[in-house]
Amino acid sequence: MNDHGGNIYAHFRNSFSTGAIIDFSASINPLGMPRTAEAEIRKHMRLVPHYPEPYAETLSAAIAEHFRLRLSSVLCGNGSTELIFLIPKVLNPKRVLVTAPAFSEYEKASRMNGAAIRYYRLRPGDDFRVDPGRFIEAMQGRGRGSLKTTGAGAACDMAFLCNPNNPTGRLLRKRDMLKIADAARELRCRLVVDEAFIDFCPGESVLSSVASNPYLIVIRSMTKFYALAGLRLGFGVFPIAVASRLKSRKEPWSVNSLAAAAGSVVLSDAAYRDASHTMIRREKQYLEKYFDGLHLPYVASDSNYYLLYMKNAGAVMRTLEKKGVLLRDCSNFKGLGPGYVRIAVRSRRENSFLMQELGKICRLS
Amino acid sequence: MNDHGGNIYAHFRNSFSTGAIIDFSASINPLGMPRTAEAEIRKHMRLVPHYPEPYAETLSAAIAEHFRLRLSSVLCGNGSTELIFLIPKVLNPKRVLVTAPAFSEYEKASRMNGAAIRYYRLRPGDDFRVDPGRFIEAMQGRGRGSLKTTGAGAACDMAFLCNPNNPTGRLLRKRDMLKIADAARELRCRLVVDEAFIDFCPGESVLSSVASNPYLIVIRSMTKFYALAGLRLGFGVFPIAVASRLKSRKEPWSVNSLAAAAGSVVLSDAAYRDASHTMIRREKQYLEKYFDGLHLPYVASDSNYYLLYMKNAGAVMRTLEKKGVLLRDCSNFKGLGPGYVRIAVRSRRENSFLMQELGKICRLS
Repeated sequence: MNDHGGNIYAHFRNSFSTGAIIDFSASINPLGMPRTAEAEIRKHMRLVPHYPEPYAETLSAAIAEHFRLRLSSVLCGNGSTELIFLIPKVLNPKRVLVTAPAFSEYEKASRMNGAAIRYYRLRPGDDFRVDPGRFIEAMQGRGRGSLKTTGAGAACDMAFLCNPNNPTGRLLRKRDMLKIADAARELRCRLVVDEAFIDFCPGESVLSSVASNPYLIVIRSMTKFYALAGLRLGFGVFPIAVASRLKSRKEPWSVNSLAAAAGSVVLSDAAYRDASHTMIRREKQYLEKYFDGLHLPYVASDSNYYLLYMKNAGAVMRTLEKKGVLLRDCSNFKGLGPGYVRIAVRSRRENSFLMQELGKICRLS
Repeated sequence: MNDHGGNIYAHFRNSFSTGAIIDFSASINPLGMPRTAEAEIRKHMRLVPHYPEPYAETLSAAIAEHFRLRLSSVLCGNGSTELIFLIPKVLNPKRVLVTAPAFSEYEKASRMNGAAIRYYRLRPGDDFRVDPGRFIEAMQGRGRGSLKTTGAGAACDMAFLCNPNNPTGRLLRKRDMLKIADAARELRCRLVVDEAFIDFCPGESVLSSVASNPYLIVIRSMTKFYALAGLRLGFGVFPIAVASRLKSRKEPWSVNSLAAAAGSVVLSDAAYRDASHTMIRREKQYLEKYFDGLHLPYVASDSNYYLLYMKNAGAVMRTLEKKGVLLRDCSNFKGLGPGYVRIAVRSRRENSFLMQELGKICRLS
């Protein structure tokens, strides 16, 4: 089993026939890389021999302009992963709150720097919703629902919230997120909002609130929505003082020049964004109809993936893998367990193939 | 002034006419990216939407095979820079020895983790040579010649040596490096040999000695010799136990999939290596003839760059910059100072242009 989804190489190392795989395990935009990005990458091939900019300055400026942010608040990273590791390293939190389930790297990065972890448990009975009041209590060190609590009682000094959450796909509405951000500020707890999938519901981003809240940090990935995962590209928006501390500890040249070039151009590709939203909406309706027809429990999703529950998930995944179809086994997420799988929304041809195969399996069992 | 060479973007940000620059400031192979690498990158464009392998497993295996190393001793990085920062973070040295001058990131990475820095001073009178006996004394905490010594007396627990050294171009012969490595082992001092430019004199690498010395670490860049700086690619060879500690602290996906693809293919491109050696040898003879003719003091180089001294270096660089020619100002290197510049060996056309321009300036002054 893999720690993460999307490792198509591990599955097909011997044959390296990656073209034959249908990868539902990584939540990447099924439209593929924007043509504008591909053209820009090809155009920039002649720059490969040269060093990239030390801190992706041109891309940072494009991001600041696009989102109307102060340039000095933006830092680009080698995927948002670089920033997820940099934040606890520099800010040195002692008690970090994460949801269970959540993307596992928040916890890994925090523990590496000696922080104790507390869990805010998301429950299937609540449809894995984050309750703002209860989350604030958990930041305060009050409240129940933690799986395992180290140093309970003291308030947290950092909290990670992925929105929409991975792997559940659930969105916390902007007004609720801002309520949590206000509480975080009062508690002097850094709230790190990972908006890796917010491009699928862009109106809910709290990016513009960073400027007025010195305890709010927002990190974004450009590799999911824009299908650039192989190139590695993310950015963070930080209170100015935090950005400057992080920059002084950041390695130079971490964003390669092809990623930087692609990133600058996709921001103005509104046509790609529109096409993506239309396609994802249509395919989600299609998939949900099938889930219902197959009596397959799924979590309502605000993103481009679904968390499903199947009793015989292991056997289903093994059967599908033989046909080159990869799902994301979610049994290793804290707060989940056997039976949970995540599937990405893909093209109609691929979705329909998966639904037919799942249909056959359901009828057999 | 830049902290490093090669930032062509900063120089021409407004026009972005990077094609018009002749960049002598970054020491990149003037043959440019191997055609085999470019073809491989184009072939792998379809993989950009997918995540790269978490730890560049396929490339690591290719490196291990090419250099006949144990697979578990190899770790790839987002440039060797990622590894330079990871090593002190994980091994946590207290007293680190670096040469002055040296690539500045060794010191930065070590200080970030709270280490005290000691300097082994390279002297122009010695032609910036490392004396193995004196270097060993410096590791032991004995000897003079340090610029500024913190905690003198106690032995160092880590030492960085770049070979050939940057920015001097001087090589420490293999037998001398192994003498230092043996002493490091006795002292229990980690010796980190940065072989970023060793491909220009490959017979002098100590890569194969890592397996038998638990205190020896070798890091390599694939971006200088193979002109892939924009893509970011490096690797390190570590004692097995050290490699496994580093891997547990390493961020996943740091090597992008195009870099990994290019890296795997260039290792078997012997024709490119031969052509590079022939060209660099020829151009070095050409440049040295001109240096002598212009009475320009230079350090004998075993790499693809030269450290030069010119009294009026600042004015020379300003004059050249107006013509789109960048040199590396080395006045900010510890142990050097005003007057020192580094120039890369480039193509005949470019070298000849630079020599003519320098000739004009020398005749005028």
